[in-house]
Amino acid sequence: MDSQLHVYNSLSGKKEPFTPITPGYVGMYVCGPTVYSNVHLGNCRTFISFDIVYRYLRYLDYKVRYVRNITDAGHLENDEDVGEDRIAKKARLEKIEPMEVVQRYTVDFHNTLALLNNLPPSIEPTATGHIIEQIEIIKKILDAGFAYEVNGSVYFDVLRFNKDHQYGKLSGRNVEDLIHNTRSLEGQSDKKNPQDFALWKKAEPQHIMRWPAPWSDGFPGWHLECTAMSTKYLGEQFDIHGGGMDLKFPHHECEIAQAEATTKKSPVNYWIHANMLTLNGKKMAKSTGNNILPNEIFTGDNTLFSKSYAPSIVRFFILQAHYRSILDISEKALAASEKGYHRLMDAYQLLDRLPIGETGDFDQQQWLKLCHQAMNDDFNTPVLIAHLFDAAKYINSVKNGLQSMDAKQKKSLTKYLNAFLFDVLGLELPTQEKGSDGKLEQTIDLLLNLREEARLNKDFDLSDNIRDRLQDIGVQLKDTPEGTAYTIE
Amino acid sequence: MDSQLHVYNSLSGKKEPFTPITPGYVGMYVCGPTVYSNVHLGNCRTFISFDIVYRYLRYLDYKVRYVRNITDAGHLENDEDVGEDRIAKKARLEKIEPMEVVQRYTVDFHNTLALLNNLPPSIEPTATGHIIEQIEIIKKILDAGFAYEVNGSVYFDVLRFNKDHQYGKLSGRNVEDLIHNTRSLEGQSDKKNPQDFALWKKAEPQHIMRWPAPWSDGFPGWHLECTAMSTKYLGEQFDIHGGGMDLKFPHHECEIAQAEATTKKSPVNYWIHANMLTLNGKKMAKSTGNNILPNEIFTGDNTLFSKSYAPSIVRFFILQAHYRSILDISEKALAASEKGYHRLMDAYQLLDRLPIGETGDFDQQQWLKLCHQAMNDDFNTPVLIAHLFDAAKYINSVKNGLQSMDAKQKKSLTKYLNAFLFDVLGLELPTQEKGSDGKLEQTIDLLLNLREEARLNKDFDLSDNIRDRLQDIGVQLKDTPEGTAYTIE
Repeated sequence: MDSQLHVYNSLSGKKEPFTPITPGYVGMYVCGPTVYSNVHLGNCRTFISFDIVYRYLRYLDYKVRYVRNITDAGHLENDEDVGEDRIAKKARLEKIEPMEVVQRYTVDFHNTLALLNNLPPSIEPTATGHIIEQIEIIKKILDAGFAYEVNGSVYFDVLRFNKDHQYGKLSGRNVEDLIHNTRSLEGQSDKKNPQDFALWKKAEPQHIMRWPAPWSDGFPGWHLECTAMSTKYLGEQFDIHGGGMDLKFPHHECEIAQAEATTKKSPVNYWIHANMLTLNGKKMAKSTGNNILPNEIFTGDNTLFSKSYAPSIVRFFILQAHYRSILDISEKALAASEKGYHRLMDAYQLLDRLPIGETGDFDQQQWLKLCHQAMNDDFNTPVLIAHLFDAAKYINSVKNGLQSMDAKQKKSLTKYLNAFLFDVLGLELPTQEKGSDGKLEQTIDLLLNLREEARLNKDFDLSDNIRDRLQDIGVQLKDTPEGTAYTIE
Repeated sequence: MDSQLHVYNSLSGKKEPFTPITPGYVGMYVCGPTVYSNVHLGNCRTFISFDIVYRYLRYLDYKVRYVRNITDAGHLENDEDVGEDRIAKKARLEKIEPMEVVQRYTVDFHNTLALLNNLPPSIEPTATGHIIEQIEIIKKILDAGFAYEVNGSVYFDVLRFNKDHQYGKLSGRNVEDLIHNTRSLEGQSDKKNPQDFALWKKAEPQHIMRWPAPWSDGFPGWHLECTAMSTKYLGEQFDIHGGGMDLKFPHHECEIAQAEATTKKSPVNYWIHANMLTLNGKKMAKSTGNNILPNEIFTGDNTLFSKSYAPSIVRFFILQAHYRSILDISEKALAASEKGYHRLMDAYQLLDRLPIGETGDFDQQQWLKLCHQAMNDDFNTPVLIAHLFDAAKYINSVKNGLQSMDAKQKKSLTKYLNAFLFDVLGLELPTQEKGSDGKLEQTIDLLLNLREEARLNKDFDLSDNIRDRLQDIGVQLKDTPEGTAYTIE
């Protein structure tokens, strides 16, 4: 490959050449969902973005250990560490055990991500599965003098940490501004300073999710779990840490502080943040009704869009924007993506049936170089897709007899379209083409044969009849010099 | 309903009327898979058996909390507690992190069970997610005097326990025989007696999966996790505990001992054990090659069967035997189930199109009673299926004009066939009927119309041609007085 992968690092604010700690291997940690509700469309965008990172690193022949956690406890109601555990709150409302909430929404999360054709991560650890590891880290932070215990709870001492380290370097904040901007809130009287954050919270008597620890029966602070799990499975220093833009502060900032407080080392070489998704130009929010669930798009069971859009279309739509841009979803944009997706897939499926010519009229080496350059430029999927459309255009030119494709080119184009469309972008063929064992196609072929025979017998009534009836059920025939092609709606 | 659910209780060896501890609610724990390899077909049978229990209890309007664990650590290589953790061993062999093994096979397990249309349990806890709870139980057992520590490991003292309690009551063994039959093995020198079992094992330096505990850095014994998780989510006493027959001893026996040692109470009211699955008359074993994976059956990618069988067929086959009988899987038996399954589904799909008559010639009240009696008799699915075939026979009689069905009967039969086929038995319509949007059926209908027209025109060459070519692609036509029906392979 004639270009090198560059990654935009949120920590430096620059695109940097990507060099893993151990040649050939990549350790990547991505903050997973808090499983107290159905997965948001915005979260899906984030996970698709990192699925692309994972897929492209594999395409580059890296052996990737991709860890994405499930937050099944410890996510407090708001960033101020006040209030109730989100999962416990949901459980109380529905009168079920918190882990039933976890199970319901973990299943939803897995199903939705599978529909969107995300690969499962290499390890998917849970916060409740790593309480011991979190307790051990708290002990170390206390020993290092960067935390203090008050009434059975333990807090990270941000001002103390900031004396030797730089708190705020990822999100570009400084501690003075934080002090200035953080109001002291009710119920935080245990903290020395409002910008401190909880490592361990003593559980109130009515709190269900609790574990014994040296300081109290309680539960870990939310920021701690990712430090515990990333360290356990990837080591004290690893290559990539990803998550949604909204996690940069305070969550990722706190992760850095926790890690540096215990190891004195910067835990992550490349911080990657995926941008947000808006709906019809506005922030998605349940309260305003400007909100849609992935499944509501897939089934069409919603009041915002006039029809359903398959998961493949939604995925393609998301990949048509760069992961660091804000992306707005709307019916118009989805409909355009649907057209584009079918244009690409039709061309891909046409390729196999194209006639072989004498010459290859397409500079494939240059094309391949551009495809790689796009992905090497911080995983620029929209640019890659634009190049794939160029290939589709060429295929259609060959079909229409305007250009020629030789055997070598056909073989190579098939190989790379396969790689980019399915391995790297993780797209899928339209549903009628997969899953079923091809009976529909065989049945249509049978009808096309009957129609061809009818035409040879000059029985044009029958041949037109077959064409019209196929059209009625959504199968469009196109007669070309090479024979009859068809598209299925 | 005019009969009451009776459950065969392995503990008493009798069918007993089912009375839950809290009226209207059922707590059920089922031992889940050890995720160190692809899920076995025999395990699938076990989980389908308990899926039926879960579904039928829900059908009876119980609110069921169904807990099924994932064993992701602590399952020692053999029952003698010698040797290595199975998951760690696999990881060492493949040079990956143990939790990557766990993830790979958890994904396989979930996918396979979803294909077989099992409902997810209410909670799916993991062994590694409950190390703290296991340590707490060990402390209690030590405090109660039923365990001892040696060199950083803790063992359950079976002889001491047996003085006040009855070890072996579930599996019908007595401690004297156990002593007589258990050889002292190398590496067990820490144990007082060979029949004692590990609660905590000190980890060797090379052991990856380890947690800090008061006795050593180590890992819990396998039997403990189920006691910890069932107690945490269902309480010290709960209604149903299930698992494969092979888990009765020592696993479930040890669970009883652990629970009684700490609570002095019998933990489970109804023990249910699913019987084994053999293949072509012999025990399944990788070593002999007499082995087949579920996915190998679904895809047809195996050397034992001549074709593929869909998950729905495999599920139906399994339900045609009672869960307490040994079941032998063979191509002949699967092919017979496939026919039976299609007979049932064809009848179900026919029902909607049947003409309404003046009278209802079927004693539906009696039929419904028999269906309920079957399921109330220890979940007797083969007897229920026999009754469903009676309903199918009646539907075919009505179709053939031999019997009559009135509107009320049609409505009620539709309701109960829906309930039994899909809610209780968890069957699914043949794949071509769902998922796709019916294009295949419409295309076939178009061919059948063309064939009908050809016959009217006495063009028998064409009509035979259509029939033969459809047969080639797996669509079988059947000419009946009412018109042409077809089945899709």
